[in-house]
Amino acid sequence: MKHYYTYQEFREDTKRLLKLLKTERYDGIVAISRGGLTLSHCIAEGLDLRDVQSIRTELYDDMTKRDVIKLFGECKFEHHKKVLVVDDIADSGETLQFVMNHLTRNYEGVTFESATLFYKKTSVYEPNFWIKEASMWIDFFWERDYKEE
Amino acid sequence: MKHYYTYQEFREDTKRLLKLLKTERYDGIVAISRGGLTLSHCIAEGLDLRDVQSIRTELYDDMTKRDVIKLFGECKFEHHKKVLVVDDIADSGETLQFVMNHLTRNYEGVTFESATLFYKKTSVYEPNFWIKEASMWIDFFWERDYKEE
Repeated sequence: MKHYYTYQEFREDTKRLLKLLKTERYDGIVAISRGGLTLSHCIAEGLDLRDVQSIRTELYDDMTKRDVIKLFGECKFEHHKKVLVVDDIADSGETLQFVMNHLTRNYEGVTFESATLFYKKTSVYEPNFWIKEASMWIDFFWERDYKEE
Repeated sequence: MKHYYTYQEFREDTKRLLKLLKTERYDGIVAISRGGLTLSHCIAEGLDLRDVQSIRTELYDDMTKRDVIKLFGECKFEHHKKVLVVDDIADSGETLQFVMNHLTRNYEGVTFESATLFYKKTSVYEPNFWIKEASMWIDFFWERDYKEE
C-alpha cells in the first residue's frame, strides 16, 4: 500500500512541526539530501534561518559483512550552538543515526537535534521531533509529481 | 504588486523546465540555498540524479565600495563532467553570476549550466534555462506558506 503524500498534507504537517520547533533556538539546519531538502527549505523559511547546509549519504553493499553508509559533503559550524538535522522520514533510521553520530563526533560543542515528518516504529533511531507514524510506503509529492508520464 | 506563486504553478513550471533539461546530461546539481533547495530537490527527482550539493551566499555591505558576496559551503566533484546550478530566480542576477564564476574558476574540467524558474530582464546574468519572465515580486509558496499567521 502506498500513500500519496501531497503538498497540502506536507504543508499542514510542516506547520505542525514548526510549532514544535519554534520553542527551540537553532543556529542552522543540516538537510539530508535528497529527502530532507524541501522540508529543510520550508523549515528554514518558517524559523527564519538562513544557514541551510546539506549532506548526502549512500548505502553500499559490503560483500563481507553488512551495508556501509558513506557520507558526502562537509558542514561548517562557526558560531553554532544548536543545529537541526532534517530528513523526510526515519524509515530504517540507519541513515539518520549515522549522520547524527557523525555530526556529534565531529563537531564538539554543537548540539544536534533531528526532525522528520515521518517515523517508523521499526526505525533504529527516533528523531527528536516527528509528526506522523508511517505504517505504509510514503510516496512524497516530490517523488511522484516529477516522474515521466 | 506581489504574485503568490503556488505549489501548483511551481509544479507546472518545474515540469516544463524538466522537459528542457532532459535533453542534457548532468552528473549532479548544485542548489543555491535557500531559494534553490526545493527546485533542486524536484529536478533531482525528475532527472533521477542523486548528487545534490548546496552552497549559500550572503551579501555584505562593503562600507568602502559596493556589495560584497560571500560564499559558504564547498562542492566536491569527482567524476562530474556537467553540473546544473539551480536557483529560484535570476533577479539582480549577481548571486548567480558570482556562483557561476566561482565554480567555473575552481573546478576545471567541469561544465556548469544554470537553471531558474524566473528571470528578470534587468538581471546581469541570464541562466541557460529559465521558464518565466518576472515582471513583479514573486512570493514563492515556501516563503508564504510557513510564515506566522
